[in-house]
Amino acid sequence: MSQNQKRQIKLGAFIPATGHHVAAWRHPEGQADGGHSFEHYKRIALAAEAAKFDMLFLADSAAVWGGGKDEETLSLSARGAHFEPITLLSALSAVTTNIGLTATVTTTYNEPYHLARKFASLDHLSGGRAGWNLVTSANQAEAQNFGLDEHVAHANRYERAEEFIDVVTGLWDSWEDDAFLHDQEAGRFFDPDKLHTLHHKGKHFKVRGPLNVARPVQGHPVKVQAGSSDPGKELAARTAEVIFTAHQTTADAQAFYADVKGRLVKYGRHPDELKIMPGIFPVVGRTQDEAEDKFAKIQDLIQPAVGLSLLSSMIGGFDLTQYDPDGPLPELPPSNGGKSRQVLLFELARRENLTIRQLYLRIAGARGHKQIVGTPTSIADLLEEWFTQGAADGFNIMPPVLPVSLTDFIELVIPELRRRGLFRTEYEGRTLRENLGLQRPINRNLLQPQEAAA
Amino acid sequence: MSQNQKRQIKLGAFIPATGHHVAAWRHPEGQADGGHSFEHYKRIALAAEAAKFDMLFLADSAAVWGGGKDEETLSLSARGAHFEPITLLSALSAVTTNIGLTATVTTTYNEPYHLARKFASLDHLSGGRAGWNLVTSANQAEAQNFGLDEHVAHANRYERAEEFIDVVTGLWDSWEDDAFLHDQEAGRFFDPDKLHTLHHKGKHFKVRGPLNVARPVQGHPVKVQAGSSDPGKELAARTAEVIFTAHQTTADAQAFYADVKGRLVKYGRHPDELKIMPGIFPVVGRTQDEAEDKFAKIQDLIQPAVGLSLLSSMIGGFDLTQYDPDGPLPELPPSNGGKSRQVLLFELARRENLTIRQLYLRIAGARGHKQIVGTPTSIADLLEEWFTQGAADGFNIMPPVLPVSLTDFIELVIPELRRRGLFRTEYEGRTLRENLGLQRPINRNLLQPQEAAA
Repeated sequence: MSQNQKRQIKLGAFIPATGHHVAAWRHPEGQADGGHSFEHYKRIALAAEAAKFDMLFLADSAAVWGGGKDEETLSLSARGAHFEPITLLSALSAVTTNIGLTATVTTTYNEPYHLARKFASLDHLSGGRAGWNLVTSANQAEAQNFGLDEHVAHANRYERAEEFIDVVTGLWDSWEDDAFLHDQEAGRFFDPDKLHTLHHKGKHFKVRGPLNVARPVQGHPVKVQAGSSDPGKELAARTAEVIFTAHQTTADAQAFYADVKGRLVKYGRHPDELKIMPGIFPVVGRTQDEAEDKFAKIQDLIQPAVGLSLLSSMIGGFDLTQYDPDGPLPELPPSNGGKSRQVLLFELARRENLTIRQLYLRIAGARGHKQIVGTPTSIADLLEEWFTQGAADGFNIMPPVLPVSLTDFIELVIPELRRRGLFRTEYEGRTLRENLGLQRPINRNLLQPQEAAA
Repeated sequence: MSQNQKRQIKLGAFIPATGHHVAAWRHPEGQADGGHSFEHYKRIALAAEAAKFDMLFLADSAAVWGGGKDEETLSLSARGAHFEPITLLSALSAVTTNIGLTATVTTTYNEPYHLARKFASLDHLSGGRAGWNLVTSANQAEAQNFGLDEHVAHANRYERAEEFIDVVTGLWDSWEDDAFLHDQEAGRFFDPDKLHTLHHKGKHFKVRGPLNVARPVQGHPVKVQAGSSDPGKELAARTAEVIFTAHQTTADAQAFYADVKGRLVKYGRHPDELKIMPGIFPVVGRTQDEAEDKFAKIQDLIQPAVGLSLLSSMIGGFDLTQYDPDGPLPELPPSNGGKSRQVLLFELARRENLTIRQLYLRIAGARGHKQIVGTPTSIADLLEEWFTQGAADGFNIMPPVLPVSLTDFIELVIPELRRRGLFRTEYEGRTLRENLGLQRPINRNLLQPQEAAA
């Protein structure tokens, strides 16, 4: 925070093709073909950059979203097909200059060498703006695209992820920052003493290295995580620099914040080295009535089969069609998918005594993230409260309908945040890491042994 | 060839970071940092597009090039690190509009789902300009980045590649071209009857599908291959649409052309469905003296250890340092790497009675491809001869030094080709496939059973 001593909110723009609301593509101002329109994404990226968002954020699944569902149900929502995130962000890197570019990639169905290489390359292409959101997948359909019948068990996924991230960061450190001499006269392209071959041999991976991309501009692309289970929080405390998380109440967000930040010290990390950014699904109106009217209009577009199907997949793939939609959520066995979301939804349903139908209407937009239907003032109040009361360092903004809801947030809420001194008017730095206020990591090969072990 | 009935030369611009000559980075007009400079690649791409090249072509290795060599030798040449091709071409797609974008990716150390997805996404990002150069890898260093001690055997690599390409093309056909309805009113995003789940179960892969990207703009990205071994030629005859190949003499190029084109009929394919594009390494001067002078200047920059090391890796990784550089090439066992190049180099050495040193000087630029040091007239003569005498449908141009040698080719040779009516003045179509004169493939799910079996 050298250029700006006042702590300010960090903002991600989480931009699924048509928007976060399950019926966004049916909205009159929606862009139903957004998933394959580079122009659509370019407009969004340029608008978010002009508004000084820290980063664009893309989720991912290496299978059709909600895959495994019957094709008839699948065909009612906009989750079938869209750009792959790394290629899309690479293309966007060429038409933007400041905004961060964070893509989700699973550790469960990838090889660390490929992943390290693509993110290092994206970091060089973008001049230091790449971020990697590590997930371990919560989708059985992915397993079936990679030779497996069943999804890898939750515990094994995290064990693999632990080793995966160590291999990836080790590969990023293959070359020292000043390894490349380009000494035409002497004929020395690089200094061989500044090349470090990894020689990793672990339980899950054997990777010789070195990486065939120079050390990333940022040292390491920013490491983002989203898991909120206990192993997920522990992995984040050890390795993540941003956590994208989901909370319904200030108290829950504060408890999570204190819990995770408290885990950092045992890994020799300062609490500031990890930014916690809950998801916010904002429906913005100039008045409360306008906001509620906007929300009602989009909720009306939800087809019951779509709502039920979305809820089923979010509680771990259990089929809810046999239950009365106007009755309570049944007791269900623990999921092998994303654990934290399942727990969150059950708690929400019990706390507010919601029927299945009420629950799917509740999550059809925000999918378990904080939903706020309000005015610029009330939305800024919420963000300010979470930000100043130990619940958040920033937010991942989840526009209901793209591009229009992002425009609303930019035109109505961001000016209010700026009036309160809570959000930047100019980028502080050139890289994502600089804008987020994160240190550039030292190459592990230059650390003293006691530092390296920390 | 509907817009232009006259058969014309197809041209690729094969653009390794610093150029093809092993000493290119040491050249006074070279760009030693080109491997991590997007601006460098952008200038090259825009120049090649303005000149109406069919495509940019990027080689690849999922390891440091020439990896496995000692780091001291490696440090003398510009092969350590550079952009990853898919991310680079994705970024270039955003700043170009017509030129094709062909990236090399190995089938040996990748998963077909990831590969199908990334190329489909690149094809949508670029409006139908993606090409995939399938290789099976010839680099033990790659194996060691993916958990293996030894490189996969040549025969097994081809067997895997055969199945890999079938899975990839099957995934590209997951969605019919008109599957996406975007019917906001009826709430139907796609027509479920036009979604086809692959359910592939083979010896090497089990992939359920469907792909989560719409059918590529081109139906399938253009399929390029470079293998010239017998299994390589057979795979190409069955599946490839472009072959990038290496020949020293017109007779050899003609024999290869006739051989491969002759193999197509048994797969129900017309000879025009496969374009054969040998590599050409052109050193262009306004006069023959100027060309030879240019060539001598760059040859003088070759460090002996670099030349010897390059030759060693090209004949399969055998260490030649124990042999007299001014003596003949020794007898060596068959390589498990790229077979065709090894054979080609042995034949060249025997035919011209070259010493080890003479051989490495000979291949330091073109690496076994056709090298021509000449004037616009003599170079155009060679291209015309090969093109009209059944040796080539086009050429992959391998500039010695980038960007300057590409500029030479564009400013001096292309006008001469145009004067002869051998090269386009405008792009014929919007997609790479259209410019190459290749049919858009029919979705396999719409073929009659007897067609699908062909």
